[in-house]
Amino acid sequence: MTVKGFKAAAIAAGLRYSERFDMGLIAADKPAAWAGVFTQSVCRAAPVIWSAAKAARGTGRAFLVNSGQSNAQTGKIGEEHCRMSAGSLSGLLHTTDDEIMLASTGIIGQPIKIEAMMAALPNLVAALRDTEQAFDDFSQAILTTDTRAKTASAEIELGGHKVSLWGCCKGSGMIAPNMATMLGFVLTDAAVAPELLQWLTKEGADLTFNRVSVDGDTSTNDSVMVMASGASGVTVEGGESLAAFKKAFFEVMKSLAVQIARDGEGATKLVTVRVRGAANDEEARKAARTVAESPLVKTAFHGCDANWGRICMAIGRSGAKFDPYAVDIDLDDVPWIRAGIDNGREEEATAVMQKKEYVVDINLGAGGCEYDIMTCDLSHEYVTINGSYRS
Amino acid sequence: MTVKGFKAAAIAAGLRYSERFDMGLIAADKPAAWAGVFTQSVCRAAPVIWSAAKAARGTGRAFLVNSGQSNAQTGKIGEEHCRMSAGSLSGLLHTTDDEIMLASTGIIGQPIKIEAMMAALPNLVAALRDTEQAFDDFSQAILTTDTRAKTASAEIELGGHKVSLWGCCKGSGMIAPNMATMLGFVLTDAAVAPELLQWLTKEGADLTFNRVSVDGDTSTNDSVMVMASGASGVTVEGGESLAAFKKAFFEVMKSLAVQIARDGEGATKLVTVRVRGAANDEEARKAARTVAESPLVKTAFHGCDANWGRICMAIGRSGAKFDPYAVDIDLDDVPWIRAGIDNGREEEATAVMQKKEYVVDINLGAGGCEYDIMTCDLSHEYVTINGSYRS
Repeated sequence: MTVKGFKAAAIAAGLRYSERFDMGLIAADKPAAWAGVFTQSVCRAAPVIWSAAKAARGTGRAFLVNSGQSNAQTGKIGEEHCRMSAGSLSGLLHTTDDEIMLASTGIIGQPIKIEAMMAALPNLVAALRDTEQAFDDFSQAILTTDTRAKTASAEIELGGHKVSLWGCCKGSGMIAPNMATMLGFVLTDAAVAPELLQWLTKEGADLTFNRVSVDGDTSTNDSVMVMASGASGVTVEGGESLAAFKKAFFEVMKSLAVQIARDGEGATKLVTVRVRGAANDEEARKAARTVAESPLVKTAFHGCDANWGRICMAIGRSGAKFDPYAVDIDLDDVPWIRAGIDNGREEEATAVMQKKEYVVDINLGAGGCEYDIMTCDLSHEYVTINGSYRS
Repeated sequence: MTVKGFKAAAIAAGLRYSERFDMGLIAADKPAAWAGVFTQSVCRAAPVIWSAAKAARGTGRAFLVNSGQSNAQTGKIGEEHCRMSAGSLSGLLHTTDDEIMLASTGIIGQPIKIEAMMAALPNLVAALRDTEQAFDDFSQAILTTDTRAKTASAEIELGGHKVSLWGCCKGSGMIAPNMATMLGFVLTDAAVAPELLQWLTKEGADLTFNRVSVDGDTSTNDSVMVMASGASGVTVEGGESLAAFKKAFFEVMKSLAVQIARDGEGATKLVTVRVRGAANDEEARKAARTVAESPLVKTAFHGCDANWGRICMAIGRSGAKFDPYAVDIDLDDVPWIRAGIDNGREEEATAVMQKKEYVVDINLGAGGCEYDIMTCDLSHEYVTINGSYRS
């Protein structure tokens, strides 16, 4: 799929892998509304600092991304490399530096191979196309330890016109909620005012990308960037058109987020942890996150071990307040724990845990607040990947 | 080693392992000062609730411990089992229920095999001895996934008399700081007033057991229990005797805590993470803990990968405030990172990381507060152990 008003391209610039794409570009034909959410880490990478400043201006032209080096903790050199690449690209696109957002992913602390990047930029711009192949190539260029490209799209009818949305993302390790998480890009040909687009992006990221945890670790480079070209001729402002657009926009984001959890480093299972009945929102979030990030719970998921004691351990240490003998836990539709006590369903629970995807539904019995988060299991493969890969 | 005024015993009661000790007992010849610190989990096991109440009375006679079942999340049955075992033991020791503290470790959610425990109690009491073998047997009876028994001892001279301290502990998974952590027992033949003993126990646990993190997971059963018989004839009250006793007492606790970190599930390395230069104590703690518990950092430790970017990632997301370009990181004596930038010492840093034990020293450059914590690497073996073991 493609989105009207945008072109995409990718190139193998030799930043890291000689035989694969490691630079990607998305360019709007004309200035487009854009928005972004970025990592809340104190150690923000140079391209994050660059892009967060540019996003605030509301409109722009292009997203330039590289894999191989993250350009984080690179100091003055890192800032200079941002100026160089944006400066060169803006010249090639006949626009200004301010209309370019940058994203990088890869090893922290190593400067970008800037000569290779600068040499590749003219060819990258020359490769821009409004074809499905070009969009697919872009989605490949942003990958690191990901085992597959992650894209999602939607088409909706608004006022008799077709509106398209397309997104892609990368991320399988160094991922946790409470963040803008990983690299994500979403495009639409609807016309959306910058303030509204920013609100939708923030709200959507909170409900989707920020609800994924592979390992509780959050990156220096997490960014989600969105552009709306308006080339469909449809304007999203309020009322029904906003409701329909928002639904499609969040669904695209959610699909991307699910793909990240499913492609978690070494992951073999996608588990949704839902906490209900919490006394307040913060305790619901804490309890869900603690379960989703507990190494003991995640290894039990991996071993298909219906060991609910580890879930009690995790909620017990999470900081949430509740009566341990008011807790119910369901595993899909199996009433696993009732009033804090084993309900004699080990066989059925074990059968659920052997599935590829399931829901752990925890009712704390302490109030009316809830939170859900997607996670994966902790496997030998995770240790293998991260014991050697430089990320 | 033994400690005057105490006897110990262990027995294979068939609670879990048929061929090995799974119940242990320490009994004071006469009522002794005692103290305890316990898990801060909301889901406290029945024996923790029991013992915390008894500890408050200041003196008692015995510690009874079992491995195999943790008696956590067992509701009314769990409470009843505490009353039954303490009631039987108090009769056999000619004392009262109030003078017995209980501890359990093992699978959460399964009631204790109470018939086996009750049947074993008379033989356990009959086996009480003041021999080294008996103390060693006790240290064996409390183990679960531990690969070895963990004991520590000290002898000091106070006012011309010898004072002895001996302790043992268990724990290799479900361990994190901010807690009373795992099961730990310390005995001394000094005379120490209950209030002073409780203060020393709390302070000592905060500086030792609570500074260990294997996996960030904290148990429903963590307990540290201390008894002081006074049988040495030496009273520890204040001044020099308190200073000398405190030093020895903390050293015993520290030795036990180090043994836990070294025996972390699947651990091959003992790493001390020290954060200095934090703006306040809480931020120092958060930064150290986030590094020590990050799966990406711990897999890098395992792979001997001198990947300092992951440490920046962890401190960046920890909640501590600092300038990323004011951070220095040393690996033992290697000046690894200076002002947030790679210092060109990868070869030396890699050599340090191949050691069994080393220190990661992080100076945030934001203030005068510090915190240190011991952790281990995250290995394939951790996943193997916890993908199958029921804990």
